[in-house]
Amino acid sequence: MPSFTVYKGSEKGQVVETKTEKPELKANEVLLKVTHSGLCGTDVHYKSTDMGLGHEGVGVVEAVGPEVTLFKKGERAGWGYNHDCCGHCKQCMSGNDVFCPERKMYGYADLDQGSMGSHAVWKESFLFKIPESMASEHAAPLQCGGITTYTALQLYPVKAGDRVGIIGVGGLGHLAIQFASKMGCEVVVFSGSDSKKEEAMKLGAKEFYATKGLKELKLEGDRGIDRLLVTASVQVDWSMYQSIMNPMGVIYPLSVSEGDLQMPYMPLVVQGLRVQGSVVGSRQIHREMLEFAAAQGVKPIIQTFPMSKQGIDQAFEALEGGKMRYRGVLVAQ
Amino acid sequence: MPSFTVYKGSEKGQVVETKTEKPELKANEVLLKVTHSGLCGTDVHYKSTDMGLGHEGVGVVEAVGPEVTLFKKGERAGWGYNHDCCGHCKQCMSGNDVFCPERKMYGYADLDQGSMGSHAVWKESFLFKIPESMASEHAAPLQCGGITTYTALQLYPVKAGDRVGIIGVGGLGHLAIQFASKMGCEVVVFSGSDSKKEEAMKLGAKEFYATKGLKELKLEGDRGIDRLLVTASVQVDWSMYQSIMNPMGVIYPLSVSEGDLQMPYMPLVVQGLRVQGSVVGSRQIHREMLEFAAAQGVKPIIQTFPMSKQGIDQAFEALEGGKMRYRGVLVAQ
Repeated sequence: MPSFTVYKGSEKGQVVETKTEKPELKANEVLLKVTHSGLCGTDVHYKSTDMGLGHEGVGVVEAVGPEVTLFKKGERAGWGYNHDCCGHCKQCMSGNDVFCPERKMYGYADLDQGSMGSHAVWKESFLFKIPESMASEHAAPLQCGGITTYTALQLYPVKAGDRVGIIGVGGLGHLAIQFASKMGCEVVVFSGSDSKKEEAMKLGAKEFYATKGLKELKLEGDRGIDRLLVTASVQVDWSMYQSIMNPMGVIYPLSVSEGDLQMPYMPLVVQGLRVQGSVVGSRQIHREMLEFAAAQGVKPIIQTFPMSKQGIDQAFEALEGGKMRYRGVLVAQ
Repeated sequence: MPSFTVYKGSEKGQVVETKTEKPELKANEVLLKVTHSGLCGTDVHYKSTDMGLGHEGVGVVEAVGPEVTLFKKGERAGWGYNHDCCGHCKQCMSGNDVFCPERKMYGYADLDQGSMGSHAVWKESFLFKIPESMASEHAAPLQCGGITTYTALQLYPVKAGDRVGIIGVGGLGHLAIQFASKMGCEVVVFSGSDSKKEEAMKLGAKEFYATKGLKELKLEGDRGIDRLLVTASVQVDWSMYQSIMNPMGVIYPLSVSEGDLQMPYMPLVVQGLRVQGSVVGSRQIHREMLEFAAAQGVKPIIQTFPMSKQGIDQAFEALEGGKMRYRGVLVAQ
């Protein structure tokens, strides 16, 4: 009967340390000792909710339920935004389980635990093996930041040679640059200032534009963008970015944002543009993402903090202050 | 040196009868005697511009330039929104000539002629053979209304069995119902009132919803929509329609409309919805559309008017008054 530490949000927006008690492991459940947790922008949204924080988890299997076959004690495993699905609906049956109407998702289910804590219990089929060559601290940010960008690029697939624009160089953006570059795309980065230019170029960008205060964008040689991943923390000036899209270009809004999407109507129609909603990823693509990252050397740039109330507070402070370069990872002591 | 009658728009919004004179036919040009012209919502937009009206033309070849190989005198040919493209850009080379940056398009080029008039001169490669079994009066509305809906269904392809929603039963909508139904889709129609229900069901719809005044939609058995073609004359309540989309559903805004596209942001992202801009169609898909319509018996329901100033005025009056069932066709006397 596992009982373990969980860091939760609270109504006052304070992180609190609590205990969660779980019944005996069910047939397909796995008890993990958490070793690492990434810190994502979505966690900021949920810091004011009474629920276990964190959804970029990596840990070591400590015990398995009686029917578990995919994991053994001592093995590493990761997990992300989704924890369960029905397994029999159209979405599940077609490999799109992330869109299962009965999906159990961070913020909506399993609120008694997260990836910030000492342990967690998850269904084995929603855990992912960590490739041997990948450090756990690097595996953690891939469980949400990685899969979010990889899915956009892979499910609605970019072609090698496409010009892929990436707005924002943060937790998601710095991974998107690497993924798109390793897929053979020409990566064009848009960021507020030049401060991240050097790093973006090192990660694989070919062009970089500082956009703060701009009302109009002009790209080198007037070469447009085929695919645009929007990883900024808020919605962008859609009109400005629409104007640099190539005909039949695709825009992926990946930010979490309130309100409406609002963009000029006729250019969308006449240029045959596509706005493609996309969210984390289904399980098979999640597996492929981890393998691809390991094989191609896609590696998050991280700042580590101790997995403790104080460490989590510090990590949130860095993230909310715009100081994180580029993903915070909490490490069990 | 052909000289012929052309019906133009004018600043005052009056249709005027004028003469156009053309130089000798160029190498690849074809002179057609216009026999039929559809009347489209876009023509209403251009009625206040000094330009030849009409872009759903069908005629008979009267003369050909010295290098024309595709058409012979006496053959029927149709034409639509686009009149030319560069032939060598990325879009042209990949069969997406409708998005050629140098495309010549109704309202932007060749303003001295249209499909409302006695004759017209077009480049042979932008003319389409009319299948033998198809009456010219039925071929005309397919040159824009037909290709607009067919492209949306075929280029971003629907699958047989998909639930295809169609908003609006007008010039486009009544063709979209037929195309989608003949492609093996389950067609769900949304219209203001029940007045077009019987006809929509005859054309192939399986469900029909009268939407006027509704703030919320509830579909039979809560079965959602996979693909939604919006053929209404103005933008719709996007929020209401978003809520009936299945996960990963696709919305095609086909209306011509001012202003912004504005729809709730998070449902788009979290449900993986897609907004797909789409416009008339490229040439190969235009050919396929005509063959498909002929083979499957897709046939516009038309009201005919004489090809004369008076006939055109009457047709506009019917269209602007919402009385057209469902496409007006002007017929040469």
